[in-house]
Amino acid sequence: MSFEDALARAARETDALLDQLLPERGAAAPRLVAAMRYAALGPGKRLRPFLVVESAALFDVPRAEALRVGAALECVHCYSLVHDDLPAMDDDDLRRGRPTTHKAYDEATAILAGDALLTFAFDILGDAATHGDPAVRIALVQALAKASGMAGMAGGQMLDIAAESRVSTSLSEITLIQNLKTGALFSFACEAGAILAGADPKPLRQYADHIGLAFQIADDILDVESDALTLGKATQKDVTRGKATFVDLLGLDEAKRRARDLVQQAEAALGIYGAQAGVLKEAAQFIIARKA
Amino acid sequence: MSFEDALARAARETDALLDQLLPERGAAAPRLVAAMRYAALGPGKRLRPFLVVESAALFDVPRAEALRVGAALECVHCYSLVHDDLPAMDDDDLRRGRPTTHKAYDEATAILAGDALLTFAFDILGDAATHGDPAVRIALVQALAKASGMAGMAGGQMLDIAAESRVSTSLSEITLIQNLKTGALFSFACEAGAILAGADPKPLRQYADHIGLAFQIADDILDVESDALTLGKATQKDVTRGKATFVDLLGLDEAKRRARDLVQQAEAALGIYGAQAGVLKEAAQFIIARKA
Repeated sequence: MSFEDALARAARETDALLDQLLPERGAAAPRLVAAMRYAALGPGKRLRPFLVVESAALFDVPRAEALRVGAALECVHCYSLVHDDLPAMDDDDLRRGRPTTHKAYDEATAILAGDALLTFAFDILGDAATHGDPAVRIALVQALAKASGMAGMAGGQMLDIAAESRVSTSLSEITLIQNLKTGALFSFACEAGAILAGADPKPLRQYADHIGLAFQIADDILDVESDALTLGKATQKDVTRGKATFVDLLGLDEAKRRARDLVQQAEAALGIYGAQAGVLKEAAQFIIARKA
Repeated sequence: MSFEDALARAARETDALLDQLLPERGAAAPRLVAAMRYAALGPGKRLRPFLVVESAALFDVPRAEALRVGAALECVHCYSLVHDDLPAMDDDDLRRGRPTTHKAYDEATAILAGDALLTFAFDILGDAATHGDPAVRIALVQALAKASGMAGMAGGQMLDIAAESRVSTSLSEITLIQNLKTGALFSFACEAGAILAGADPKPLRQYADHIGLAFQIADDILDVESDALTLGKATQKDVTRGKATFVDLLGLDEAKRRARDLVQQAEAALGIYGAQAGVLKEAAQFIIARKA
């Protein structure tokens, strides 16, 4: 299966699972579930669930288990987008070409929908359907909590906000910020397959570290080179805010070279899995070639 | 030990544990951890951790395990206060006699601190120090996720917001709202002891259901009878907002009678534990006798 087909399939299956896991009918608070669905089931590549599914496939983990972990991770990713878009944070009206959750609903509902999606991720991981062994499920809970919390995504977002108000940010600083803000969830995505299988997660963690940073550099490049219509959100925001990007600090050409190097290193990290890792290698290429 | 001493001891030990679990020094994002500490370590009764510790004591669960579960639960409770106080939600400047987290820091930091506290709760529960058996830890994760999520606290908060904009709310509606918004975490607090011990949580769930509702009725009574100085937050807010309370719907005398009945039922539910449950019975009395 080609990378594009594999990505589309993982997205389709993740959406079907989230649709099933988040039923509006019979909900205690239907409006809350509607907002959670709006946030989690909108357009999106579902790149993180794809990475879970493909890393799990290396170890012949049942696909249904990997999809549940992917769905939990997508809940965390989407909660972070909902909260990041809030007026007190990035104040964005548009996300993936649609009104952001607080625009489509209201701020209070968006805050609660984000909170409930984050909480639901741990509910999904805790359920026996995710894996028969409680030790595996609790390992997933801990890994996701660390990747999303104060020493992971939330910490990175805090540093990112602080960096906006500073005159200059160094390359090592924005690398740290992106490792936490974006990289931690990519790492979880790739390690989850190994955790589900009880295998060594180290090669996948290296792969994830490289593609995570490449992803963010590519984002900064897209922010300069793309337009709002293609990207589905406001562009050149970083320039407006005076926030340092990889492109500012490295220049466009060097940023592109750096991203390509990272993709090569990511592919090399997968060497031990041989041809089985073909789709994950293609994914690394896609990360710097994507247009949105 | 008297109830007052037991409550004070649980509070002291919970604060010491949270202080140790949330070190600012060496943190990736020190400002985020500072805001989390501000929210979680401020003045507070630590009633929920106390309930965990005392319900666990019925089954001779090691106190250190119960305290970790209590600390995780307090993180969830405090995150909910931080988010509830935000301008887009209840818009409160004062909480427990101090500026709310978004006033002491800023809105973005408060949103992230709440997110990170919620996430950290699952990190604490996932750690082997909480219980040696992964099956017990994952049971705690699931119970806490359900109690705090869309069919628990977050759902209740959503319904509560919706009720504010309606002309009238029935007794059954505000009972449902409070069961979700307040009751679900009380239930978790009391059941956690049984989960840690692998015991039947049913009597404790009944106890929790009764004290949870009594707690909310007492809150509504306090809102009418107390003043801001004693309560440490704005009073008569519900009147200003035209939001129905138990006092509105039942009258002050009937609300007090109802709260007393619930406390009696709560005590009765603990009958099977005999004299060992003395402190939990006193706690039920305290819930309607407290002044703040």
